[in-house]
Amino acid sequence: MAEKEISQAVISRLPRYLRYLGELKDEGVERISSQELSGLMNVTASQIRQDFNNFGGFGQQGYGYNVEYLYTEIGKILGLDKKHHLIIVGAGNLGQAIANYMNFERRGFIFTGMFDINPELFGKKIRGMEVRPMEEMADFVKQNNVDIAVLTIPKGEAVLVAAKLSDVGIKAIWNFAHVDLAVPKEVQVENVHLSDSLMRLSYMIERYESEVANKE
Amino acid sequence: MAEKEISQAVISRLPRYLRYLGELKDEGVERISSQELSGLMNVTASQIRQDFNNFGGFGQQGYGYNVEYLYTEIGKILGLDKKHHLIIVGAGNLGQAIANYMNFERRGFIFTGMFDINPELFGKKIRGMEVRPMEEMADFVKQNNVDIAVLTIPKGEAVLVAAKLSDVGIKAIWNFAHVDLAVPKEVQVENVHLSDSLMRLSYMIERYESEVANKE
Repeated sequence: MAEKEISQAVISRLPRYLRYLGELKDEGVERISSQELSGLMNVTASQIRQDFNNFGGFGQQGYGYNVEYLYTEIGKILGLDKKHHLIIVGAGNLGQAIANYMNFERRGFIFTGMFDINPELFGKKIRGMEVRPMEEMADFVKQNNVDIAVLTIPKGEAVLVAAKLSDVGIKAIWNFAHVDLAVPKEVQVENVHLSDSLMRLSYMIERYESEVANKE
Repeated sequence: MAEKEISQAVISRLPRYLRYLGELKDEGVERISSQELSGLMNVTASQIRQDFNNFGGFGQQGYGYNVEYLYTEIGKILGLDKKHHLIIVGAGNLGQAIANYMNFERRGFIFTGMFDINPELFGKKIRGMEVRPMEEMADFVKQNNVDIAVLTIPKGEAVLVAAKLSDVGIKAIWNFAHVDLAVPKEVQVENVHLSDSLMRLSYMIERYESEVANKE
């Protein structure tokens, strides 16, 4: 596979391609040109061709891309042809929101367990899944081939839980805690730092207003 | 201001600088060198100096940066010295999780209202804020100087609501719906596409495993 030299920027764009292709597929569209896809996605056709060339091009120009094939191939690159077992650590609002986000299962992410430290939540069912005590997490991960842990807990706890999960061989952590986790290189980490995102939005407001003020 | 030529990559890193500086400030640290900050943040000291040079450098090398000053200045660049009134549209788990995320208010984002289409939720209090019917949203935005709308609703509704919000002069949309919104250029949009993020994680697992397999 030629995957290794591919830049992070290209990879970051793949889920968006997949989303548009999934919608086209659902609408029964069989083929699409880079020009048509460009119009839909608001990126240039040349950017699309360049991105796809990283993976061998996915089919001929002129004739257009086969939507189903392209969708499947991009899915494979993203590892979506495999099943992943996922647990959620932290059964608060955010943990519950993620548990209820149905689309994940369609992509092969199987919701396998939910954990919390709050005894009041033990046994409560969230999307059919009982909340278990945190003490059971490590054994559960080992016994149930859990690949991915979603951390929706405060940052102090997240650091400790990430260390514990790394010890029992978790493959990946989807981290919503507002802290950078230090884990061994075998453990992949993707952060969703919501307040960083809100600050970027605040910056955009600030920049737009200063541009407008400068024009006046 | 020299802000306009600054790359998106630099801007994206500012919230992380702010987070580390905030922690240092809370710990009572008064000055820090780019080397020390580099050790904490796991980026090179030269990257830090380069990033800060975009904004005039923020103080002398050798002597180190004044933590309080640096924190305040980065906050200003991000527009955090201003107050923003924010509403949440969609009172489900995700909307509630965001409402309960206390840190936002500390940064000047004032939770002003919450809306939903589900009549069963009307009047329910979430973090002291009553859920209002969606029909009241447009007038509410106009009457309460609302700057930012957080969309935690399904994608079909998000498109319609974003159009309505644009009509009544919203400045910015923090979009959690899994769709790209087409809004006028006056409206700033920051997307949090959770499933894109999960797919990046899945890609990282895939890539790591194929690297390991290739070595064996």
